[in-house]
Amino acid sequence: MKTVRAVQYGVGPIGAELVKYCLKKRGIEFVGAADIDPNKIGKDLGEAAGVEKIGVPITNDSKKLLTKTKPDIVLHSTGSYLEAVKSQLLEIMKSGADIVSTCEELSYPFLKSPAIAKALDRAARRNKVTLLGTGVNPGFVMDTLVLTSTGVCQEVKSIKVRRIQDASYRRLPFQKKIGAGLTPDEFRAKVAEGTIKHVGFPESIAMIASGLGWKLDKIEERIEPKLAEKSVASQYLKVEAGQVAGVDQTASGIVNGEDAIALNLQAYLGCPDPRESIIIDGRPPIDLTIKGGVHGDLATAAVVVNSIPRVLTSDPGLKTMKDLPVPSGWFAEVHNFLH
Amino acid sequence: MKTVRAVQYGVGPIGAELVKYCLKKRGIEFVGAADIDPNKIGKDLGEAAGVEKIGVPITNDSKKLLTKTKPDIVLHSTGSYLEAVKSQLLEIMKSGADIVSTCEELSYPFLKSPAIAKALDRAARRNKVTLLGTGVNPGFVMDTLVLTSTGVCQEVKSIKVRRIQDASYRRLPFQKKIGAGLTPDEFRAKVAEGTIKHVGFPESIAMIASGLGWKLDKIEERIEPKLAEKSVASQYLKVEAGQVAGVDQTASGIVNGEDAIALNLQAYLGCPDPRESIIIDGRPPIDLTIKGGVHGDLATAAVVVNSIPRVLTSDPGLKTMKDLPVPSGWFAEVHNFLH
Repeated sequence: MKTVRAVQYGVGPIGAELVKYCLKKRGIEFVGAADIDPNKIGKDLGEAAGVEKIGVPITNDSKKLLTKTKPDIVLHSTGSYLEAVKSQLLEIMKSGADIVSTCEELSYPFLKSPAIAKALDRAARRNKVTLLGTGVNPGFVMDTLVLTSTGVCQEVKSIKVRRIQDASYRRLPFQKKIGAGLTPDEFRAKVAEGTIKHVGFPESIAMIASGLGWKLDKIEERIEPKLAEKSVASQYLKVEAGQVAGVDQTASGIVNGEDAIALNLQAYLGCPDPRESIIIDGRPPIDLTIKGGVHGDLATAAVVVNSIPRVLTSDPGLKTMKDLPVPSGWFAEVHNFLH
Repeated sequence: MKTVRAVQYGVGPIGAELVKYCLKKRGIEFVGAADIDPNKIGKDLGEAAGVEKIGVPITNDSKKLLTKTKPDIVLHSTGSYLEAVKSQLLEIMKSGADIVSTCEELSYPFLKSPAIAKALDRAARRNKVTLLGTGVNPGFVMDTLVLTSTGVCQEVKSIKVRRIQDASYRRLPFQKKIGAGLTPDEFRAKVAEGTIKHVGFPESIAMIASGLGWKLDKIEERIEPKLAEKSVASQYLKVEAGQVAGVDQTASGIVNGEDAIALNLQAYLGCPDPRESIIIDGRPPIDLTIKGGVHGDLATAAVVVNSIPRVLTSDPGLKTMKDLPVPSGWFAEVHNFLH
């Protein structure tokens, strides 16, 4: 059996996680890597990902790399926004490679970016390749797992999903990203400039609505600071009572003035009960909790790499998680999953 | 758009639930029904299902019905065992209809009945139809939802699934089926004669193992009585302390002498904390609970009827839940889901 040949496109923190997990999968080998960061160009992909050298240098000439190596699959992790990554995706598809991307807006692009979605789908079909955007969120806990849970329902009146995370043990950049340690005014300024924001809620809501066949009137988003009730500290930061411990972001898919789908993400220092929660007001009702939550970085890499066989065996086109077979881990030689 | 034409094959208690839910779906209509029960032949399908008359008589001549009506989809619910329903499935497929069946052994037949599975798959491909066995269990909570949950894992060491049900509010036949009110000796006699037994554990375990790419050494099943610690009562039955309150059934998929996959089903009177629980010892670990559990009868009908669009749009062949796209409810005209 021929090895599945992979290229890593984007070797930032998420790309590094993808590489580390993918190196453990049997039957897949990296044949190249691309990044534009001058500090990474020429470096070995394994070393850049924080593991052993694998003899694959990182290049900034992605076009040449793709033309030369003609990979089967490209793991793409360069950005959250479609407008910014669109030309990269088109370039990769032109080389004939399937793509799994962590671009949040790609996870369900049909609502916010129908023109780009159409162009990407057309390019995928023309090049006979499959394009998927996924990750843990968007991609799994607040959309795919929610839709799956409705599989046992005869009626669904409304859906409430909560992701409650304790940021105390995350890296400093994450703690800063959620505004920990800021004053409420500083937090609101960062929200206004767009630097405190989870990207992907409208995509998750639109995927759920599409799966259920619901027409939403609108989607609304709101970002609030989660204030510390008493002083809390992490390894890196101390937050006094009344200051910002983290973020509390909500998005609602609204029908007739009511929240039909409500997603809430809280990530803050000192969270006492981290969890994922899916509440379906339906027949039967569903009250699902994942105690402790799902580890974000590990899970994103898992969802992306675990999707590879489903993407390789899919019909061509721009797909979303709900179009592909049931997601699952796989722990044998990859060819066992390519029939 | 043409209406999806359905036949109900088997109008027992489960069939009745399928009919009741299916009648609510837009774009699907029943064009016939078959059952061998003399008390049902000639009766109206809607009335037999406990709702309004729909002008569809139940016949015992399934062959003629299928030849005459040429349905798009048959909802099949006549039995748990493949050997008993095989010829029915072949007859239906010959008529060119796709099938969703509640036959427990059909949910993943490749391990226990590879020859029948092969014959059914061949017949499905020859007739260009799709055949799926599903339900809430097997079909969803102890297999499909488990596999889905592993989608966020980079490693899975072992999986423990528990379905803990309070039988107090179920129908009398169900309470009898789980042995409530028997002495421990009477219970063991019924286990020995095969009348107390959930069918589907080996299928659920085999589906999980196949999805993960695990090779199991063997699958073991064990059925124990759940004894009442104090006297408990339902609307129908009183159980004294020390008598049987219900069933405690376990199945293990074993690798190197260890339980790699352990499924446990408890259904008994007076259960204090009904729930579904999926514990994955993995990286990351997953500790998922559905509080209160998933209502069995409603959910089986939901899973079966919700599968119709995925079956109608699938490639031909014998499929299992893990082969089809992510399950979900759908609540608009069926043609919205048939692209």
